[in-house]
Amino acid sequence: MFYKKRLMTPGPTDVPPTVLSEGGKPVIHHRTPQFRKILTEVIAGLKRIFKTGNDLLIFPAAGTGGMESAVANLCSAGDVVLVASCGNFGNRWTNIARAYGVESDHYEVEWGASVDPKEIERRLSANPKIKAVFTTLSETSTGVESDIRTIGEIVSKTPAVLVVDAISGMGAIPMETDDWKADVVVVGAQKGLMIPPGLAMVSISKKAWALAKEAKLPKFYFSWENAQKSMTAEALANTPYTPSVSLIMQLAESIRLLEAEGLESAWNRHAKMANAARAAMEAIGLKLFATGTYSNAVTSVWVPEGVDGSKLFKTVRDMYGITLAGGQGKVKSSIFRIGHLGYADDWDVIAAVAAIERALAEQGYKLEFGKGVAAAEKVLFT
Amino acid sequence: MFYKKRLMTPGPTDVPPTVLSEGGKPVIHHRTPQFRKILTEVIAGLKRIFKTGNDLLIFPAAGTGGMESAVANLCSAGDVVLVASCGNFGNRWTNIARAYGVESDHYEVEWGASVDPKEIERRLSANPKIKAVFTTLSETSTGVESDIRTIGEIVSKTPAVLVVDAISGMGAIPMETDDWKADVVVVGAQKGLMIPPGLAMVSISKKAWALAKEAKLPKFYFSWENAQKSMTAEALANTPYTPSVSLIMQLAESIRLLEAEGLESAWNRHAKMANAARAAMEAIGLKLFATGTYSNAVTSVWVPEGVDGSKLFKTVRDMYGITLAGGQGKVKSSIFRIGHLGYADDWDVIAAVAAIERALAEQGYKLEFGKGVAAAEKVLFT
Repeated sequence: MFYKKRLMTPGPTDVPPTVLSEGGKPVIHHRTPQFRKILTEVIAGLKRIFKTGNDLLIFPAAGTGGMESAVANLCSAGDVVLVASCGNFGNRWTNIARAYGVESDHYEVEWGASVDPKEIERRLSANPKIKAVFTTLSETSTGVESDIRTIGEIVSKTPAVLVVDAISGMGAIPMETDDWKADVVVVGAQKGLMIPPGLAMVSISKKAWALAKEAKLPKFYFSWENAQKSMTAEALANTPYTPSVSLIMQLAESIRLLEAEGLESAWNRHAKMANAARAAMEAIGLKLFATGTYSNAVTSVWVPEGVDGSKLFKTVRDMYGITLAGGQGKVKSSIFRIGHLGYADDWDVIAAVAAIERALAEQGYKLEFGKGVAAAEKVLFT
Repeated sequence: MFYKKRLMTPGPTDVPPTVLSEGGKPVIHHRTPQFRKILTEVIAGLKRIFKTGNDLLIFPAAGTGGMESAVANLCSAGDVVLVASCGNFGNRWTNIARAYGVESDHYEVEWGASVDPKEIERRLSANPKIKAVFTTLSETSTGVESDIRTIGEIVSKTPAVLVVDAISGMGAIPMETDDWKADVVVVGAQKGLMIPPGLAMVSISKKAWALAKEAKLPKFYFSWENAQKSMTAEALANTPYTPSVSLIMQLAESIRLLEAEGLESAWNRHAKMANAARAAMEAIGLKLFATGTYSNAVTSVWVPEGVDGSKLFKTVRDMYGITLAGGQGKVKSSIFRIGHLGYADDWDVIAAVAAIERALAEQGYKLEFGKGVAAAEKVLFT
């Protein structure tokens, strides 16, 4: 049987054809006016998407490299930071901090829940030594969103800086960097920004730069100062080491696409797809994993009793062409996740729901074909 | 006037069309059997090219990230290392070491010369506390090669490990990792391996792993241990964070091309191109910059008196389509460099020589047209 390949994971996501074809173009040298022009446009475009006037740096790295850059550039050994985690990627902040000898006041909610801004406020006032608060916009492992606006309001009233992992959220769900007072925002390439993996982007506020000036942790490749220094009057956009030329050319095209659609329209599209996916899963009797604020980037669903989650996932992928994601960490085999993120539309969601219906029925799960799809349509068509 | 674009810098280099087209293919998810198969093949292929049975890790990063990984994974703060440098990239080892609080016994020869293995031997016996020796196979900034075989012989007799930046050499000039006892070899993507920039590869010997076990410098993203741990029995090839899927697909194809040609044939091709470039430059009265062992990856040439090097470089690039490289660091405007590296053949060298002849003449430099080309042909046709 022939099925097209659809990548409906929370990253990497499908890359639009015109973005793919940029990846097939000849490499240009990075120390040239041609490349600097592209990089200048990309940085300006990213600032519009981040909704920030802050400095913005790009590193050849996975998103985790961008996260590490925040820890290494903001902290000194022995510093105390607050990590507000609601899942696997939130926990990564603490893992990075501890690897660097930074003490993490680790606040982790039950997976599925959102972090409580009030608890962040409480911990910040209990410990005035906290230098930075690290949290996650859209927790990919659980499908839950954090209220960055409220957290930003709280943190901005303290000397601490707010660092947000917006890797799987940027471009898909609202993230108002400056309005929400997010000092450092880390983003990856292969999610809402619709390019292949390999780029990490970081925006840095004045408040964060001031903290960075005091920070003593060792860094070289991820040094914000080195990266910022490479931007000179002659070369407004430049990098200290060879940038990932092809990925940046692809990013230029994906920014064009995102802005042609309109960032707010893209947010609405993601909200609609997510609402449809959730309605569909509930209509066929499945239970959503998230108990907190749903992230519109990814929908997490409990594998129903009597169904083998790993088999479900593999059937949908290998028989029907749609790659979903299993669970991560402690919910590895008990949930599955539908990514409706980046280059995805209503009909992809319909297709995923239909394929899930089919694969569930094949395992003897009782459902009425089309019920999930009908629920999705109801959301999508209004 | 129409001229094709030729990238004749020591990186990034031109990417073969079939490798480019891999970059335009849809992204596949990294946690799938399909991707693991590709990664397994790529790692096996790289080991053949590195000529090593050692472990081999791939990071989404510029080559500098791979260099940093060696310092961060092998050293503790206060350690002493020996850096044997013959240029800008050799100096980077010391810059990274010092950024991490590691003491560098910095041995730097006059630019243009090669490092002297005897001096490395002398410094190693003078200071038995030296834990690692960092050096460069092909120094991109000066066009000079190091005698890694002899250095490896020397270092292997001490408790120190030998770390080689082979970023611009691997695939182009001989590098026999195991035979030459190079404990850690760092390579970048965009040079002899003929893919766009964005991947760093590192091979690690048992001796290096033993040192890494004691090393206390902080690391997370570049942690060799984390990366190695992700290789399990179920997933022989895996990565702890999202790999650069597209670049790895491209690398799979470039390894196929390199092995179809034959690694030794590729080394011979580079030697011939380099000999031709050097003969041509001397035939038109220019002076080679290198006084040590020439690197066959890049030829460095003094800008002759009365010629504006920056203008020469720009004319060749903007008028005649061939991107050469200027100088770096302290010889920024006094030399230019011809990269004959990766996807390049005899006729590219001929073209570059002819374009240089033309641009020199346009600045009033006295030469007989075709003399450089004739000298190149003489080398290439025998």
